Amino acid sequence: MTQWGTRKQEKISRKLSVKDITDNKVIPTKDIVKVLGLLIKSNDCVALEGDNQKQATFLAKALNQLNPKEINGLHMVISSMSLPEHLEIFEKGIAKKLDFAYAGPQSKKIVELIEQKKIEINAINTYLELYSKLFVDISLNVCLIAADKADRNGNLYTGPNTEETPTIVEATAFKGGIVIAQVNEIVDELPRIDIQSEWVDYIVEADEPYYLEPLFTKDPQHITEVQILMAMMTIKGIYQKHNLQSLNHGVGFNTAAIELLLPTYGESLGLKGKICSKWVLNPHPTLIPAIESGWVDNICAFGGEVGMEEYVKERSDIFFTGVDGALRSNRTYAQMAGLYAADAFVGATLQMDKYGNSSTVTKGRLTGFGGAPNMGHNPGGRRHSTDTWVDLKQDDNYLTPGRKIVIQMLETYKSGNKPIIVDQLDAVEVGKEANLAVAPVMIFGEDVTHLVTEEGIAYLYKTKTPEERKEAIAAVAGVTNLGKTATKESIIRLRKQGIIAYPEDLGIKRSDAKRSLLAAKNMNDLVDWSKGLYNPPAKFMK
Amino acid sequence: MTQWGTRKQEKISRKLSVKDITDNKVIPTKDIVKVLGLLIKSNDCVALEGDNQKQATFLAKALNQLNPKEINGLHMVISSMSLPEHLEIFEKGIAKKLDFAYAGPQSKKIVELIEQKKIEINAINTYLELYSKLFVDISLNVCLIAADKADRNGNLYTGPNTEETPTIVEATAFKGGIVIAQVNEIVDELPRIDIQSEWVDYIVEADEPYYLEPLFTKDPQHITEVQILMAMMTIKGIYQKHNLQSLNHGVGFNTAAIELLLPTYGESLGLKGKICSKWVLNPHPTLIPAIESGWVDNICAFGGEVGMEEYVKERSDIFFTGVDGALRSNRTYAQMAGLYAADAFVGATLQMDKYGNSSTVTKGRLTGFGGAPNMGHNPGGRRHSTDTWVDLKQDDNYLTPGRKIVIQMLETYKSGNKPIIVDQLDAVEVGKEANLAVAPVMIFGEDVTHLVTEEGIAYLYKTKTPEERKEAIAAVAGVTNLGKTATKESIIRLRKQGIIAYPEDLGIKRSDAKRSLLAAKNMNDLVDWSKGLYNPPAKFMK
Repeated sequence: MTQWGTRKQEKISRKLSVKDITDNKVIPTKDIVKVLGLLIKSNDCVALEGDNQKQATFLAKALNQLNPKEINGLHMVISSMSLPEHLEIFEKGIAKKLDFAYAGPQSKKIVELIEQKKIEINAINTYLELYSKLFVDISLNVCLIAADKADRNGNLYTGPNTEETPTIVEATAFKGGIVIAQVNEIVDELPRIDIQSEWVDYIVEADEPYYLEPLFTKDPQHITEVQILMAMMTIKGIYQKHNLQSLNHGVGFNTAAIELLLPTYGESLGLKGKICSKWVLNPHPTLIPAIESGWVDNICAFGGEVGMEEYVKERSDIFFTGVDGALRSNRTYAQMAGLYAADAFVGATLQMDKYGNSSTVTKGRLTGFGGAPNMGHNPGGRRHSTDTWVDLKQDDNYLTPGRKIVIQMLETYKSGNKPIIVDQLDAVEVGKEANLAVAPVMIFGEDVTHLVTEEGIAYLYKTKTPEERKEAIAAVAGVTNLGKTATKESIIRLRKQGIIAYPEDLGIKRSDAKRSLLAAKNMNDLVDWSKGLYNPPAKFMK
Repeated sequence: MTQWGTRKQEKISRKLSVKDITDNKVIPTKDIVKVLGLLIKSNDCVALEGDNQKQATFLAKALNQLNPKEINGLHMVISSMSLPEHLEIFEKGIAKKLDFAYAGPQSKKIVELIEQKKIEINAINTYLELYSKLFVDISLNVCLIAADKADRNGNLYTGPNTEETPTIVEATAFKGGIVIAQVNEIVDELPRIDIQSEWVDYIVEADEPYYLEPLFTKDPQHITEVQILMAMMTIKGIYQKHNLQSLNHGVGFNTAAIELLLPTYGESLGLKGKICSKWVLNPHPTLIPAIESGWVDNICAFGGEVGMEEYVKERSDIFFTGVDGALRSNRTYAQMAGLYAADAFVGATLQMDKYGNSSTVTKGRLTGFGGAPNMGHNPGGRRHSTDTWVDLKQDDNYLTPGRKIVIQMLETYKSGNKPIIVDQLDAVEVGKEANLAVAPVMIFGEDVTHLVTEEGIAYLYKTKTPEERKEAIAAVAGVTNLGKTATKESIIRLRKQGIIAYPEDLGIKRSDAKRSLLAAKNMNDLVDWSKGLYNPPAKFMK
């Protein structure tokens, strides 16, 4: 006979074990380690909130203080492995198995811990598949999340940085798991309720506010003229060509340059209203001039951005905002929207091979990909049409669907750095060392529709074979080894066929790519554009 | 100068216009038409909740009573166009444009209304892309949704049939739209809060409970021996072969047969624990015997199922349930899980062409697809591995990803019916008549990995060209026109290569496919298996 109700019983018994320490739902700050020690058991599946922006720092530190002789073998779900504390859980032997999506600053350390057999990678996931697995593969016993404020009943205010919190909490709360939230403060009344108290088992006031990373803030003063040239080509040779309205921009100076050229270069091409009105992206400060110039209708955000709070409040026509006026960011819905409702993804990479496969996983670094693979491929389940999507079709067959635009922007060389275009991705070796069943490729070459370099654009969606794709990549690969294989004849042919275009083919003079084209040249300009509503983090205002 | 805060101002002014009629958030039942007439304006985008199960019937009827001379040109978002009332909104000229995902019973009428230029199809979407568009393309002015209960503050209890409600409400409430919920009753205290009052502008007590369709209830007495044979082949020739653990079953007798064979035929093959432990599907009554026999670890549900309420409550180890014990269904998360966390999709179709493209859109019927295309393709953004996913790889290249299993089950002939395997899908003609930019194909042939007919299994993922795929389909296409093109030589070759398998190749005797193998033979058996917890709708107990 199967025993039923075991998860429910287990939850009740764990909660009973801490009832003398907690005041209803409130865990005293000083008792957090003791309480976690009673609520978590060895081999549990535990989600620890680590977003691109928001980090449950206090709970991560508390988890590290558990005694690995008593609690060990945890299977951790941490979407962004950003903090040293995330690694320590494994170093100390408290946790063993890991599911993650991104590990920027900790990517090197992860590889070391794999070699030392302290971390066993269950999978590198993109955000959306990691969240998906929480409803199928992984039943969470405990989740440790971060919110701005709570009331004493346990209602939570996540505010601008809602991010992945509701999804993790739903997966835990409805499957008999225990939800523990660290909050910056406990208050009598919340500005709004983002997560209802019924879904929350415990709240604890953290000893310091959760860490928040201004990841999407790019100072315009660092944008180079090469990036401006590439941005001009992208606007004219891709966005205008395909009448692109809905798109996702990731983090980086290439896309920041595009954003800052819309009200200047884009305006001069007469493109306002015709391109780039609907966005899936974080509240990028570099998008302020375009917003203020009336280019933007809608922005669906993954997370918040430090300093953009007041600006977003005052621009509720285009941002999703709550009753308190603050941003509603939702990582899950934004990833979903980026997958199915955006006609284009623009990405960057650290390495690309000759067939256009790319990865941010490089020698000794297991970076993960965040949301790039989810948004940077052609979704085969899409059934609605837009002009842009249909424009990418390469035949007249009525059964052939349209295609999503997937752009990779990269400079073929960067002084002092290693070449970006390589014979074989480091991801192959790194993946084998980490015991991954297939190589951790970020974006597959066959998914890339446009490659933009400082040399020109390769319209890869027009190529018919991997060999032709390689030829087209070579034609814009500059002085790299691959670039040197491009013959004069093939370049003439590819230009004639419209498979590649150089700036002159697009009517762009290289000498026009000047910083004077940028709608904002520094952080102060962005503040001015925002009418003083944007309040950049101090480190950008030195 | 751009004017900011217009959506917010518009919402305030509309709400002011009804403040003398409503009692805070409560709209008197008798005043619903008048209030809708003040809150909705011509050319608005309006979502009307129509799920697979739950229907906002009362609000649909009220919408129909608006005066089309005053309010017209609405752009409706209705995921499932299931009710005659949904069509009337267009017939009467109140609405013009339509985004939908599925239109079973109304599929014929929709085509008529398109011909009469009463409906302009904006798009046929799958559920997940429709929801995605609400965060990018379509800013809802008003949404009309259905819940079980509300308290007087406007908190909502959606209970087992939560479905798409939270997603539609979030998209509306955070973009300055107005959220109106019909409820079966207004109570003092809710069993649980599924949607917090801040997200809800108005509640109205409906004059009758919302309509709920028991769509996923299949009476075992109608399962045929052909279906049992196909189910045996699928279990042995696909599930066992690929060690399939996580999967989605749709609606239908083919998959019901598989579910009812697990505790009998599956058990005899020693497969318990080895296959089919993690599911993304509605609470199918036909899965009860497998659940009771200990086959199932986890079920992530799109919606509820009438009669399964008590059973689900008592099986909280495997279902997602809330503090009240009732099911938490979430159509968005389940579609997401079906996309990225399930290793297999099993579908059915009304037509398939010789290259394996299939559609439920047939002559004169614009059915839509629900979630099938989303789950029935190989997601190019997936990066985590499972043994099953890797097992589908056809080369040893470490860069090649794994593949999702997409199964189509169909009987090549059905007495009295039209042939299923056709030269050209009707979807081609119907799509052109409806002015769709590309044909409404449900599942593309190149996405189908396995085709199961009463003749055998075609392992289409092993085929290398469309022509070879066609040859393999022909070999299991029986006495259809396509089937007659299969030569003895090609069949011998395909069997030898393992591209097709007949029952005898799988060690299955056709004569063993008996109804006696079914773990439950009728509805009463299902009730018995459930220990009386399952309470089938009256129409199944005649």
